[in-house]
Amino acid sequence: MDVYSAIRERRSCRSFLSDPVAEEVIGKILEAAVWAPSPMNLQPWEFLVVTRAAVKEAVRKEAERCRAELLEKSGWKWLGRYSVDFLSTAPVLIVVVGDPEKSGADKFIEGGGLCYQHACAAAIQNMLLCAQAEGLGTLWYTLYDSQHLRKILGIDSGKIPLAIVCLGKPAGELVQTPRKEPAQKAVFIR
Amino acid sequence: MDVYSAIRERRSCRSFLSDPVAEEVIGKILEAAVWAPSPMNLQPWEFLVVTRAAVKEAVRKEAERCRAELLEKSGWKWLGRYSVDFLSTAPVLIVVVGDPEKSGADKFIEGGGLCYQHACAAAIQNMLLCAQAEGLGTLWYTLYDSQHLRKILGIDSGKIPLAIVCLGKPAGELVQTPRKEPAQKAVFIR
Repeated sequence: MDVYSAIRERRSCRSFLSDPVAEEVIGKILEAAVWAPSPMNLQPWEFLVVTRAAVKEAVRKEAERCRAELLEKSGWKWLGRYSVDFLSTAPVLIVVVGDPEKSGADKFIEGGGLCYQHACAAAIQNMLLCAQAEGLGTLWYTLYDSQHLRKILGIDSGKIPLAIVCLGKPAGELVQTPRKEPAQKAVFIR
Repeated sequence: MDVYSAIRERRSCRSFLSDPVAEEVIGKILEAAVWAPSPMNLQPWEFLVVTRAAVKEAVRKEAERCRAELLEKSGWKWLGRYSVDFLSTAPVLIVVVGDPEKSGADKFIEGGGLCYQHACAAAIQNMLLCAQAEGLGTLWYTLYDSQHLRKILGIDSGKIPLAIVCLGKPAGELVQTPRKEPAQKAVFIR
């Protein structure tokens, strides 16, 4: 698939068919992830590929707990209607874990040290685009307590679970969210 | 260009030809950027497209000052040999600015509120891949003091200049940095 088409056609998917994703396809998606750029090529990412139902369900429960807490804290009504069932119905969850020790020289800058997270985000975007090319739907999910997720998944306390990528065949059409025109977002200094 | 080829063949470019980049191509790259996903589709990015020589030179000087400071702080010898001349020789710098007000519900999570940066990083990765498809070289550059960069570019104090994307035709072959095998970075929970 053409790179522009993958970028342009990708949308968040929150409803998945139960069909499993072939390990070969998961392998291609992980291969795409690791070719992202990172500070000093430190490759500050790790991937937990979860297909075990009980573990997905534990993740869903944590997200459900977090959702209720966020509804209370924010007062945002949509959180009251937001189902996180995709965390158990998606056939695959890929948890992307970042290593703060693997940021580059930015860690010596005041307020810096987050470039390892940016690299992980680039790796995630590669994964979403690759999944799109494979005809799969994805969701970049981030609403959970990191400490709780560490316990469920056995992640070291020094590492940061940055996102969960839900992966599978989409059930139905995806919502076509619009974007502001680039001209509204860009200033030229000529 | 196929999405896999763009992901696989992209490399950091630190040496540029002076040929200008057509505004139409810059437009395509910005279009790719804005189709990245973001929390609640808040599109927390802005782009400063710098082609004015005096401004690029001011950015280079700040990066040079920062490089010298980081060399002292880190003791990392490579920083002593690292030239940041690409900031003035690249025909285009695209400064990506994030808006912390535009993070999603993650801002109510303890230690959260950084998902707007992840979205900006996804937008940057889209830009790099699109530039690759256009036969252009890119560098994702982050070593500067944000406050100094704000002054040079007139960026609001509440916004975060997350990265500078250097853009132009590559001068010569790019260094083919390797990656660890995905299998070394992935754990399967089946």
